[in-house]
Order: sequence, then C-alpha cells, then structure tokens
Amino acid sequence: MLGVGTPLQRACAATAAAGLDALLISPGADLRYLTGYDAHPLERLTCLVVPATGEPFLVVPALERPAAEVVPGLDVELVSYGETDDAYALVAERLPGATRVAVDNHMWAEKLLAFRRALPGADPSLAGEVLADLRMRKSPDEVESLRRAGAAIDEVHRRMGEWLRPGRTEREVAADIADAIVAAGHATAEFVIVGSGPNGASPHHDVSDRTIEPGDPVVVDIGGRMADGYCSDCTRTYAVGEPPAEFAAYYDVLLRAQRAQTEAVRPGVTAHDLDAIGRDIITEAGYGEYFIHRTGHGIGLEVHEEPYIVAGSDRPLEPGMAFSVEPGIYLPGRHGARIEDIVVCTEDGGERLNLADRDLVIL
Amino acid sequence: MLGVGTPLQRACAATAAAGLDALLISPGADLRYLTGYDAHPLERLTCLVVPATGEPFLVVPALERPAAEVVPGLDVELVSYGETDDAYALVAERLPGATRVAVDNHMWAEKLLAFRRALPGADPSLAGEVLADLRMRKSPDEVESLRRAGAAIDEVHRRMGEWLRPGRTEREVAADIADAIVAAGHATAEFVIVGSGPNGASPHHDVSDRTIEPGDPVVVDIGGRMADGYCSDCTRTYAVGEPPAEFAAYYDVLLRAQRAQTEAVRPGVTAHDLDAIGRDIITEAGYGEYFIHRTGHGIGLEVHEEPYIVAGSDRPLEPGMAFSVEPGIYLPGRHGARIEDIVVCTEDGGERLNLADRDLVIL
Repeated sequence: MLGVGTPLQRACAATAAAGLDALLISPGADLRYLTGYDAHPLERLTCLVVPATGEPFLVVPALERPAAEVVPGLDVELVSYGETDDAYALVAERLPGATRVAVDNHMWAEKLLAFRRALPGADPSLAGEVLADLRMRKSPDEVESLRRAGAAIDEVHRRMGEWLRPGRTEREVAADIADAIVAAGHATAEFVIVGSGPNGASPHHDVSDRTIEPGDPVVVDIGGRMADGYCSDCTRTYAVGEPPAEFAAYYDVLLRAQRAQTEAVRPGVTAHDLDAIGRDIITEAGYGEYFIHRTGHGIGLEVHEEPYIVAGSDRPLEPGMAFSVEPGIYLPGRHGARIEDIVVCTEDGGERLNLADRDLVIL
Repeated sequence: MLGVGTPLQRACAATAAAGLDALLISPGADLRYLTGYDAHPLERLTCLVVPATGEPFLVVPALERPAAEVVPGLDVELVSYGETDDAYALVAERLPGATRVAVDNHMWAEKLLAFRRALPGADPSLAGEVLADLRMRKSPDEVESLRRAGAAIDEVHRRMGEWLRPGRTEREVAADIADAIVAAGHATAEFVIVGSGPNGASPHHDVSDRTIEPGDPVVVDIGGRMADGYCSDCTRTYAVGEPPAEFAAYYDVLLRAQRAQTEAVRPGVTAHDLDAIGRDIITEAGYGEYFIHRTGHGIGLEVHEEPYIVAGSDRPLEPGMAFSVEPGIYLPGRHGARIEDIVVCTEDGGERLNLADRDLVIL
C-alpha cells in the first residue's frame, strides 16, 4: 500500500500513525525523497521538520536559503537562521511540548546530541522506522528511474572487453570504467570494484595496482547515480582468457544459485527464504563456507537501503520493493565470483533491471 | 603542543586525560586520521575503539576484513564479525564496565542509538571534544599536504580564462573545472561553485544552466581532495568583461578586508577577533549587512572542520592551525564576491597556501 499524496504528505500521516510528534530529517536520501532537496551534510544544521499535525518546515542556514529557494518543487516553509543563532533552539521553539521525536537514521551524532539538549523532554528514536516503510515500496516512477539506471550500467558492462585485458592494472581499468559510467548517462560514478585474481576473493576490495594476468577471474562490481538521484549497482565476473577449472566449476554453481533466487522473487516470499534459496544451492555444492555475505540490499536513492535480503529477516517481499540479488563464492588467496542484478518485486513475480549476460564471459 | 607519538597514541592519551573510558570512531575523517583507513560509511558497523588503557582495535564486517588488512600502516587488531552477528554487543563485551564513552561526531544516529542499547551504563558524549584538539593542530607533514593541495587548486584558478566566457553556461564551465581539478593532481573534485551574475549573491549556489553574460561578475569556489585525503578550497571572483561600477567598488572593499585578515593571522589572535577585522572594514564601507557568513573554517581531512573563524569564538589561533579566510559581499538579485585563501598559522604569523592573484581578474 503506497497510500496517497506526495511522499511528504504520506510521511506526515505515517508520523501521526506511529504516535510520534515529529520527524527531524537531515541532508541525505530521506531529505531528497521527501522534498527533492539534495543538500550536503555539513556542520551547520539543515533540518526538515515533519510534524504529525501542522505544516512541515525546513530550517536552513541563511547563506543556503537562496540555494534552497530554487529547488524545483520544494513546497515547504523555509526558516533560516544567522551564523551565530542557535538553530536547535529554533526547532525546539516550534515544537512546544514535543516528547516523541524521531531523527534521521543518518543524522550525525553531534546534531542528535544537540537536539537532545534542545528538546530535553524527548529521547529521540529513529525516523527510519517510519520512512523505510515508505521508501522501500517504490512508486512506478521510481521503478522507471531504477530501470533507466539499470540500463545505463548494463551498457558499461557490455563494453568491458574494451578495457579489461592482461597487462593492465586494476586501477587503469577502473578509471576507464568510471568514465564510461558517466558517459552511459549517470551523473556520477559511485563505486568501481575491480578485483582480479586473489583480490576477487575480497568482496569489498576497491582497486589496486595489481596487473591483470592471463586466465584471471575478475570481479567487476560497479554503480552510479543518475541525475534524479536513483542508483545503479551491477556485478559481473569475467575471465580474462581461459580461467582455472576450479573457478569454472563454482561459477556454474553460483550462476544456478543466482538464477534460482531471481526467479523466486514474488510477493510473500521472505527475505530469509530468498537468501536461503541461493545459500542452499551453494552449500549443497560444497561451497557454503565461501558465501560469506547476505544475498542483497535494497536500492533507490541510496545504494544500500531497506529491504536487506539476509538470513533471519522475516520481512515478506511486496510489490515495488527493489533490491540486489548477489550471491558470491570467495576462495581466499585464489579468486572469487559474484553475480548481481537489481530485481523489482512485481504483483506476481520479479523484474530484473539488469540484462547484461550472466553466463561467464571470457574476454 | 602536538605531543608525541602517532595520532592514535596521542588519541589514547587524550582519551585518558579527558576522563573517558573509550572513543568509538566510525568511518570518516577521524578514522582516516587515526589509522589511515579510508572506509566508506555504510549500514554495517565499522568502528575503531580507542580505549584510555589497553590496545585500540578495529571492528569490521567479515567481508571487509581483507580490504582492511591491506591498509598501509594499519597497526591495530582487527576484530571481524559475521553477517548475522551483533557487532554492537561485540564492542560492549570488550568494554566491560565502560560508563564514559564518546562517539565520532559524524557517527550515524542509528549506530549511536545501537551503542546506547549495547552499553546501557554509558550515555555517550562526542569524541570531537578530544580529537578536534589533535586534528586542528597540523603537523609539518600535514601542512605540507595542504600546501600541495593549495598549489594544485591554484593551478586550476590560473587556467580559468580557458573556460569562463560569455555564452557558456555555469554547468559547462563547472564540468571543465572539475576535469581540471583532477588533472592538477587531486584524486577527486569535491565541489565546484560557479555563481554568475545574480547567482553570485547565493554563497552556497552550486551551478545552474544560466548562460554567462558579458560584464558578469562570477564567483568560482572550488576544491578537491588529494590522494592522501587532504583538501583544497579556494575562491576567486572574476569579471567576464568590464563589470558594473558598483561591483568594482565593493570588490575593492572586500580585497582590503581579506588582505587585512590574512595579514593579521598569528598565534594568540582569537577567531572572533580575526572575523571582526574583516567585518569592521566591510561594515565601515557600508556593506556590513551583505557579509552574511562567518570568515572561515578549518581544513584538513575535511573541507570544513575546526577551528571555525566566527564571531563569538574566543579560541586563540595556534601554530599549525589551518583555515580559510573568505569574507564575501552579496547583493541579493544583483551579484556577489568572495575571496578565499587557506592560511596556516605559524610561530610568528601566517602562511597563505593559495597564491593565485587576488586582484580582480577581468577575463
């Protein structure tokens, strides 16, 4: 149930429904989702106040007021303050008697503690408990944004043969990929992982000066952010020449696991069960101890957001949820593989937003 | 007084001196300063524990352990946890009886609240109260890093005539500048403000599709991050052809104010007084109401950090402090000007790290 109205109107209603007096939202994905304002988190307070009753308002430093005024579609009162004013007291004055407030999950500790001093009657909880429910159920427009982002990153993967060659370093390849992410239509490249040979066994490897050798498996996990804020994230594992036989063997297991998981997406399946579908296939093939992370994460205005596809989560999938399905197998010191697609849960199944070939591509 | 030892050793000593049991440091500038680890802030907990007594340790997700292990010079115990483990409980178990802990100023609220649950006897304060004292007094090596960053951004300003021309949009000019920031030796471009004509009156204007017109004053505030993490930040205001007479008049006032401030830097002068030196000159010339922000901010591993050069701060300057001196005059709806240099306080004065021409450059 997406509810009616704008995201901000739905957030006000959800704040009231949760028994809260107000949400305090700092710069980041929540603020962008609710207002379209892509503000940078800095030392001065910028804070959207979402009250259960009454009108939302946005507190901004006076010197940023002109920038906030020109945000397209920003439809809230702007309350600005001078360089030596107490912005926290300003918020507190406008929330007399508030005792149940919730703060942005990513609000900086220094700002949370300042709000605790300014609102001594309130012991803040987390706004994510209200907003995650809204943000993780994507509207058709949001799904279309993610579809465009997916197509853009697919285009980069399809060009991989131009850059990924023996004799080049991971860093050189990554620089070409970063340029291609922007050339494919993203506003920015958000991350580029090029894990060749043994570096592929480190799931959050970045890049290094290692030179790619003939026969290396190479994990390429890349993503960017489109101008509208929505993110892409797609992993393919390539072989630069004929890979080791043991690699080809477990790549096939991984491919079966990832396919089974993407095909199992439908409303009602829990995050735990979706994780288990891939984990069981990998475990039965003898590689369970080498699949050392969860299956996936939600994606939208953040690369990582709810829902997390992880063992122990009994959250059922619902139409509009968008998340990665990215099992991996990592043999320490040798090599690794990961296959990742973004999938959106639909009314009766799932839609893959990444369509680049998942079979092993030997470059 | 920089004290002795590595930043991490000095942080342990300062933690004890402050009467704290431990600091809890999350990914960001503090973590990079203390360990060299440039980790991304994500949903899984990464946390450096800096105890008053005993050895520091770094809690990392298991899948990021291989990435942490290869951080050059990282000399702390790594404690990793699995995807379904409680990382906060893990930290709490290793801090039995801790009641006085301080968290990273930029720690996300969701992590701070999780630590409050895991450490019910502790009501966290802010680690910045301990670390800002260390970080704002730059070592000679850090000053050299900032000097290199300053030279790199100066090089970009000196090339401005290549890009800033009537008929081009702010966005086109900014794209060229961003490329030049990297070409000049930065690892990344961190921000590019191109405020032409009336947009120059918005101090935190970003860029727009406005086309630059003949005679426009244009505020160009740019900065990047070097590979070692240290940042540059320098503003010059250009005139694209002959500017309006009223602009030339207040630019001259601004130039006098900024020169007086940079020349006044020396140990013992307070942040308040340094701000007032420029504000008085601008106010006496009749533009006081148009100088709507503080004079400056510290700079190092963050673009904005302590010390802030702001009215009301009685903090005395000390050798090694590095900060911006950037007064501005902004006429709403018309145009604006800002001149910014990074200055380091030395034993007997100040050293400007930006040397690009401060006289009005007419392109």
